[in-house]
Amino acid sequence: MDCVVTDEQLNKILTDDVPYGDLTSELLIDSSKSGVINLSARQPMTLSGVEEAARMFELRGLDVTISHGSGDTVEAGRLFLSAKGSAHRLLAVWKMAQVLVEWMSGVASATKSLVDVAQGVPVACTRKQTPGTKALSVKAVRNGGGAIHRLGLSETILIFAEHRQFVTEQGGELIAKARLQAPETKVVVEVHNIDDAKYWVAAGADVLQMDKFTPEAAKQIAEYCAENQLPTLLAAAGGVNVNNAHEYVAAGVRLLVTSWPYQAAPKDVQVSFIPD
Amino acid sequence: MDCVVTDEQLNKILTDDVPYGDLTSELLIDSSKSGVINLSARQPMTLSGVEEAARMFELRGLDVTISHGSGDTVEAGRLFLSAKGSAHRLLAVWKMAQVLVEWMSGVASATKSLVDVAQGVPVACTRKQTPGTKALSVKAVRNGGGAIHRLGLSETILIFAEHRQFVTEQGGELIAKARLQAPETKVVVEVHNIDDAKYWVAAGADVLQMDKFTPEAAKQIAEYCAENQLPTLLAAAGGVNVNNAHEYVAAGVRLLVTSWPYQAAPKDVQVSFIPD
Amino acid sequence: MDCVVTDEQLNKILTDDVPYGDLTSELLIDSSKSGVINLSARQPMTLSGVEEAARMFELRGLDVTISHGSGDTVEAGRLFLSAKGSAHRLLAVWKMAQVLVEWMSGVASATKSLVDVAQGVPVACTRKQTPGTKALSVKAVRNGGGAIHRLGLSETILIFAEHRQFVTEQGGELIAKARLQAPETKVVVEVHNIDDAKYWVAAGADVLQMDKFTPEAAKQIAEYCAENQLPTLLAAAGGVNVNNAHEYVAAGVRLLVTSWPYQAAPKDVQVSFIPD
Amino acid sequence: MDCVVTDEQLNKILTDDVPYGDLTSELLIDSSKSGVINLSARQPMTLSGVEEAARMFELRGLDVTISHGSGDTVEAGRLFLSAKGSAHRLLAVWKMAQVLVEWMSGVASATKSLVDVAQGVPVACTRKQTPGTKALSVKAVRNGGGAIHRLGLSETILIFAEHRQFVTEQGGELIAKARLQAPETKVVVEVHNIDDAKYWVAAGADVLQMDKFTPEAAKQIAEYCAENQLPTLLAAAGGVNVNNAHEYVAAGVRLLVTSWPYQAAPKDVQVSFIPD
Amino acid sequence: MDCVVTDEQLNKILTDDVPYGDLTSELLIDSSKSGVINLSARQPMTLSGVEEAARMFELRGLDVTISHGSGDTVEAGRLFLSAKGSAHRLLAVWKMAQVLVEWMSGVASATKSLVDVAQGVPVACTRKQTPGTKALSVKAVRNGGGAIHRLGLSETILIFAEHRQFVTEQGGELIAKARLQAPETKVVVEVHNIDDAKYWVAAGADVLQMDKFTPEAAKQIAEYCAENQLPTLLAAAGGVNVNNAHEYVAAGVRLLVTSWPYQAAPKDVQVSFIPD
Amino acid sequence: MDCVVTDEQLNKILTDDVPYGDLTSELLIDSSKSGVINLSARQPMTLSGVEEAARMFELRGLDVTISHGSGDTVEAGRLFLSAKGSAHRLLAVWKMAQVLVEWMSGVASATKSLVDVAQGVPVACTRKQTPGTKALSVKAVRNGGGAIHRLGLSETILIFAEHRQFVTEQGGELIAKARLQAPETKVVVEVHNIDDAKYWVAAGADVLQMDKFTPEAAKQIAEYCAENQLPTLLAAAGGVNVNNAHEYVAAGVRLLVTSWPYQAAPKDVQVSFIPD
Repeated sequence: MDCVVTDEQLNKILTDDVPYGDLTSELLIDSSKSGVINLSARQPMTLSGVEEAARMFELRGLDVTISHGSGDTVEAGRLFLSAKGSAHRLLAVWKMAQVLVEWMSGVASATKSLVDVAQGVPVACTRKQTPGTKALSVKAVRNGGGAIHRLGLSETILIFAEHRQFVTEQGGELIAKARLQAPETKVVVEVHNIDDAKYWVAAGADVLQMDKFTPEAAKQIAEYCAENQLPTLLAAAGGVNVNNAHEYVAAGVRLLVTSWPYQAAPKDVQVSFIPD
Repeated sequence: MDCVVTDEQLNKILTDDVPYGDLTSELLIDSSKSGVINLSARQPMTLSGVEEAARMFELRGLDVTISHGSGDTVEAGRLFLSAKGSAHRLLAVWKMAQVLVEWMSGVASATKSLVDVAQGVPVACTRKQTPGTKALSVKAVRNGGGAIHRLGLSETILIFAEHRQFVTEQGGELIAKARLQAPETKVVVEVHNIDDAKYWVAAGADVLQMDKFTPEAAKQIAEYCAENQLPTLLAAAGGVNVNNAHEYVAAGVRLLVTSWPYQAAPKDVQVSFIPD
Repeated sequence: MDCVVTDEQLNKILTDDVPYGDLTSELLIDSSKSGVINLSARQPMTLSGVEEAARMFELRGLDVTISHGSGDTVEAGRLFLSAKGSAHRLLAVWKMAQVLVEWMSGVASATKSLVDVAQGVPVACTRKQTPGTKALSVKAVRNGGGAIHRLGLSETILIFAEHRQFVTEQGGELIAKARLQAPETKVVVEVHNIDDAKYWVAAGADVLQMDKFTPEAAKQIAEYCAENQLPTLLAAAGGVNVNNAHEYVAAGVRLLVTSWPYQAAPKDVQVSFIPD
Repeated sequence: MDCVVTDEQLNKILTDDVPYGDLTSELLIDSSKSGVINLSARQPMTLSGVEEAARMFELRGLDVTISHGSGDTVEAGRLFLSAKGSAHRLLAVWKMAQVLVEWMSGVASATKSLVDVAQGVPVACTRKQTPGTKALSVKAVRNGGGAIHRLGLSETILIFAEHRQFVTEQGGELIAKARLQAPETKVVVEVHNIDDAKYWVAAGADVLQMDKFTPEAAKQIAEYCAENQLPTLLAAAGGVNVNNAHEYVAAGVRLLVTSWPYQAAPKDVQVSFIPD
Repeated sequence: MDCVVTDEQLNKILTDDVPYGDLTSELLIDSSKSGVINLSARQPMTLSGVEEAARMFELRGLDVTISHGSGDTVEAGRLFLSAKGSAHRLLAVWKMAQVLVEWMSGVASATKSLVDVAQGVPVACTRKQTPGTKALSVKAVRNGGGAIHRLGLSETILIFAEHRQFVTEQGGELIAKARLQAPETKVVVEVHNIDDAKYWVAAGADVLQMDKFTPEAAKQIAEYCAENQLPTLLAAAGGVNVNNAHEYVAAGVRLLVTSWPYQAAPKDVQVSFIPD
Repeated sequence: MDCVVTDEQLNKILTDDVPYGDLTSELLIDSSKSGVINLSARQPMTLSGVEEAARMFELRGLDVTISHGSGDTVEAGRLFLSAKGSAHRLLAVWKMAQVLVEWMSGVASATKSLVDVAQGVPVACTRKQTPGTKALSVKAVRNGGGAIHRLGLSETILIFAEHRQFVTEQGGELIAKARLQAPETKVVVEVHNIDDAKYWVAAGADVLQMDKFTPEAAKQIAEYCAENQLPTLLAAAGGVNVNNAHEYVAAGVRLLVTSWPYQAAPKDVQVSFIPD
């Protein structure tokens, strides 16, 4: 997968860290020194951010070799990225490149672990990304095999209870109002309890997002839909993680919505330098 | 503490989420509707990001009241921020403001927990922030009572083993070279084992950063410095967390360096709307 | 409707036109002179861009009064915006504010004329906006009562013939592949002839976008769907305009997709100055 | 003619349209697929924007061949641009590149049609470009053989009636005031009727811009200048188009000032894909 | 005169200096402390940059009072700007505001000294501003009573010898070529010796820019023009300064072109703080 | 030394000067013309800005050869940079590239002259750069062999008298307060008279910055430190220049702090064009 952030954004990360050169290197290391930096997985991981890290090295005039790209799942010890050139430059890019891959691979690996237990049911991550990391978070989720629930509010319809506080229409009337004006978009409704869930599947929601439902509660709604031949797609959200995902799937949920991968610990990347 | 990011950056977060309006609200809710949004702590937390969240609401033309600011430690249930105005606008800002406070308060609260066990020894967080979040991370750390180890590479000297691979001078000679050219800056040296630690305190490092030392190993170096009347300040880095910080302090460490708060789980913020 | 572009973008439009002051005004007019500028409709129009024009005057320190906002349909002669203050500043903002309203009102008024003949069938404008004008174009379309077909490519599925050149699956198999991975999104398929149209409604497309179909051809597909109880929503695209929209509606089309309003001539705005 | 907008601006156009990938392509087309896209003129046109479109493809890592550049006038069917590489990337750039060329070639071709009937008299387009399109509009006008009347207000002097409302000096006194301070700049005066026109040529304006004068009225002023040996250059503005330009030229006008090309319909570009 | 740079640019100057707070203030001064900062002229000067400095204080939430604005000539000791509020904030803005006024007032005062000896002949500063300071330099020049020779290359014609190396036409033919296509613009020609000067005034240049001519040489050309009734406006450039300006004026030069003010030493501003 | 400003910043300098092409070149010179531009030192100088100037030519598609880079000290007449290609493009970049090297080489050469008389004592330039030129000024200083005193306020501690107005603690107590919280940073104290100087070296300042001390006064403090075995490093600031630097060094000062190079006159660069 290609680099998803602009050179300007990568330059900003580098410049925020090294605005006027690496003082330590410049005082101590001769500017003619050169070498190689190698980045390897220190533990098994699904890689993410490799192309962005590579681009950081390129932006500082270094030669880069990618041996495993974002989306690859690698074992511990596997080399995935090398850069070669001026020691000053290698040292100046090092940590920002390493941290980027560590953090993105943490998100990607957590997503992957969920996808692996979801038995083919799609895993969709929410909009609750760490502030300012949206493009990187979206890539990391996709590298782990996940999808994004909603990229934003402008092209999808998700009726929260909070919306419903401000309207007078309810049920089928509210859904029809949305459909009339946006006939190309599915209508998703979020609910917080079983009664509401039954009300909105009966009202014709295209997708029902069940927030913080237990698997048992989700199952109850799935059965209700089956009995009444209601075609609503059932999604579970709020508290879905690698330990309970299979229970939701077994309950009849057909979409897992989660913010869980955004809180994953970074994966460790091993860095080594080889002076020429 | 003031808002540390520009309006342009806050606008970008809002616009990335809502580039062309909130489709759901605009289809369903009358544009004349208005109300109040309240943000409260759902669990005890040290707040951070409150001013940034408040500014997001202001940037969309809403009236804001802050009842607890960043840096305040509050119990569960405590209201800290309200905004008032158009329902369309409240709903458009809601999640981005909430997520910002949740994530920053997670970092601040984790920092605070470390500071609380450090018995007055400063806690300094590293440069390993989540990519693109530097200004927000720095604020969150400070709200929790922590400091920042190095803001960047341009105004501090920290000699890593990786630097030493590229130089011929070692020990006192290397330190003198740095000091001569940067007489206003302390020379910090990172070491990974006891022999190196003794070598560099003897060589006159101003600060010794002991990476992944056990408290026992740290204590050994503290004793070595005491015996030899070496004034080097001892810092522990790599693996310092809320469970072991007191051991490092007891061992004689005088600076705790850590990335641990950056991995803290977000704190939960309760949101409620009151329509007019 | 609020101003949809940032101050930075409005400042850029003003600065591109007046990078270092209005030479004529500054050479000839005393800097203490002041007055009022009035903007009125010179012909009947649906207004758009009024808030953006108003904000331009405010950004140069002028006091603004809006008497008709974007979305209002006004007769010839109607005053909608006044600004008051320094003559130097009024003259420096004048033309850019005027041109913005003229152009956006042209798009809005053309959209409105289509909506007026569409008998309740939604009018959705395409992504073929004049380059660099996306936010303004989207607002103008909405001010005229239209919707936007697709804001971009990242959250909607529209299978063009060009996509189909690169895949091996066709028909129901292709639609199922999309649905499996994006269960919250409707699948739209574009077709260019009657055979393809029948093939894809039979295959289960949620929406069929008929490109450059005559109303007669569109009617044939509508009948085919009715006969076969196929629930696909029919959209007409390519060549829809104010003269033929009613024929598509009569033929059974339930969504009109068009770029026609983007080519509308600007509406004329009358400007007058009143010196103090 | 070179690309006149920055990579950053082209990236913005692409990213606004495809912020997080083309969902349709990514769900349906294997990422290993590749091919060629060809852009050809569907009707006779003076090309513009070809280098900008080419750069869009390059910015997404595609190989580009330009066979006709901006400023070339080509017949229907003529291929002018090809790009080659990943199907995902070709499909993601396609429409924005096409729309850019279509719209700019519309402006260029309209300008060209005016230049062709102006018998060597320069055609200068106004500042009334579509908001936010200044650099592209200026290029398109030049590709069509036109000039730009005023790029902005900071380096030229054009005394409107609106300026004159705020000054006490008139005629020669006002012109002298401008000349004294800006001796390197010609003084242009706009007038709306014959009396004013005579007054200002007699007062010594370097250029007289006659707004919405008929060719007959323009001729009257040309004769007045000739009789009185007044060297003022005569310009016609307001309503000049391809149908009446020759009449103004015949009347003795020596500069045609117009916004007409900005309202031209886009030219049609034919796009075809060839999968590998 | 208004602030000529955007908030974004002023924020950048402040943020480059204080990216993450003023460490000294924040460690030592209680955040509740407040006071007043006063900026006064330490020597006689023509002020410039006062509004920009004031805006810097405002951008950090401080209350500002301007008692003398840009363009005012003040004696030593005169207070021109005060700001009031948080000590942390006053100290963070202090130096950048001071340096801005010192440097801009240096340029303005030097310009003023030239204008004072030019006896009404306009003083026009060149494009050779310190890189990146264009908007500020232009304002400073104007505050000193000067004009700008050329704001850029896009709207004026100045034929350098270097242009003439690349063309075959010379003299009247070259001037006519320029005039034909840009009838609204004066043709300026730069020359380096007396023979060239005579050649180009005879050829009909609107303005002759004499580079590094002595006053005597300039006088020779003025006499040549008078004898031959040539209306060319004579400008002196290259080496014009406060000591020789009157000689050029006496020689008949009617425009002084110079970069001299850009090299002026900054003027000293006295800063004092008054704690509450 | 590498280019220290981004392409975006260099493009802005070029675009501010040539927003829409070089009118003179485009009207007069055939677009097929090409040639070479040579930049040489017109006087002895320490070069700076060569890589930035080179990059400007590259950004406009020209081929560049650097024969002497920033930091090289060259005699008069020495060629350091050539660019080759389209005459239009060479002429459009020319002046901005020339002015950049002239100004930066002025700063670098002045710094060099100070370093040459400082006998190994470091020369550190202040934060008082010309507004908006920070990155370029820092590079120029380093090219001349100087260091930067403080890059900003966020990572260094310098206690001004102005800070002391807002605190109650003084002397050792104040220093201890700073040290406790920022153990990795030296504490620098600025003083304005001999009594204060003695007070603060006795209080334990790491570095004493003596503002506007005569060499004799500085010597008095050096002797006081020696007598009392106080290890404080002595720095002279305020009025240090090439004429008095050796006196400060002789007095025992071990760091020279100065803004003097920022006021140096630009060095002259000779430009010549060779048409193909």
